[in-house]
Amino acid sequence: MHQINVGEDLRDRNREIAAENREMLRKNGVFSVNIMSAPGAGKTSLLVKSIPLLKDRYSIGVIEGDLQTTRDAERVGALGIDVHQIQTGGVCHLDAAMVHSALHQLDLASLDILLIENVGNLVCPAEFDLGVDARVMLLSITEGDDKPKKYPLMFSESRLLILNKIDLIEMVDFDIARARHEATDINPDIEIIELSCRTGSGIEAWTGWIEDLLLESGAG
Amino acid sequence: MHQINVGEDLRDRNREIAAENREMLRKNGVFSVNIMSAPGAGKTSLLVKSIPLLKDRYSIGVIEGDLQTTRDAERVGALGIDVHQIQTGGVCHLDAAMVHSALHQLDLASLDILLIENVGNLVCPAEFDLGVDARVMLLSITEGDDKPKKYPLMFSESRLLILNKIDLIEMVDFDIARARHEATDINPDIEIIELSCRTGSGIEAWTGWIEDLLLESGAG
Repeated sequence: MHQINVGEDLRDRNREIAAENREMLRKNGVFSVNIMSAPGAGKTSLLVKSIPLLKDRYSIGVIEGDLQTTRDAERVGALGIDVHQIQTGGVCHLDAAMVHSALHQLDLASLDILLIENVGNLVCPAEFDLGVDARVMLLSITEGDDKPKKYPLMFSESRLLILNKIDLIEMVDFDIARARHEATDINPDIEIIELSCRTGSGIEAWTGWIEDLLLESGAG
Repeated sequence: MHQINVGEDLRDRNREIAAENREMLRKNGVFSVNIMSAPGAGKTSLLVKSIPLLKDRYSIGVIEGDLQTTRDAERVGALGIDVHQIQTGGVCHLDAAMVHSALHQLDLASLDILLIENVGNLVCPAEFDLGVDARVMLLSITEGDDKPKKYPLMFSESRLLILNKIDLIEMVDFDIARARHEATDINPDIEIIELSCRTGSGIEAWTGWIEDLLLESGAG
């Protein structure tokens, strides 16, 4: 569980398998995203709200990481797309090897986009490259605007920060300007999208972001 | 970071140090609580709201666990009580050895109550006994009512479940009956308190719970 117990061997091995994953995805023209957040920030809701806007034009696969249950996979599978479940059995993050096994069970040649939902955890998932094109993190505004400096690795490793539950902005003490400032202080290149999975506001900014990167990557 | 990488040696060592912590606290008549939750569920706010209700009658010490910053310790220290900061340097939970070092720096003989705020993480902290009298977990209702079955170890290890941000109940899709049912399904003995750190509603139920256990334990 300790960062300090993750030996260099384990890190090296993860890096090797991540490179293999990256190559498999590239060869098959799949654009891939690793979605990370604290528990309950809305990763599954984001998938459920955005996949219907994309699935008529793109072939989408999902890998669902969970400690124990298959609940998220069932919610996403109800959209009629290909979902592969990884139950980590208590392990607090996905690693490249878990994703590698899943990649062998998906029909990659038929996919344009692969969305990976990581285990709900703002710490450990940031340390494990899965071999994807982009890492994305969700921060629910109910979690507080002090999170970037408290969990800096997650912010520095992410290409996009999604501020979710923006419909609750009047109900919570969250200073968007402060959060934006602290996030870009840690990662000057991070892009930021505000949205609400509940109301649907801002979802198109997220699906547009995926489409832009998909085109840019030459995948699809 | 893996559960499967925490060897039995590490577990045994943690158990030994936790037993030492328990003995130190018992000898000094200190009632102790380990407060755990996902990031942003309100652990620090709970301390900030409840300590003023207790500190005139009891001598209170706080240990603040954080990955990087001293922000939480500063917020709690502003209440004029003894706060010891543990910066884990990226480690995703507190362990018994970290707490042991802190115990040696606190004036235990003068304390009645020791409150330990763990790192924001719903997975790993549940695996490390710190040697305290009671483990408490906070679940913000904004995180969703599906959390007990998804993060069962945290619920099975906790004596008390606090449902926080209850003032937002009309704004989020959270079924209190479902959450209570699933939590007690995992841990039939778990007690449950609903409160809002923002409005202050229900805070006395939490401070009363501490006082009842303090008297019961014979500490103080």
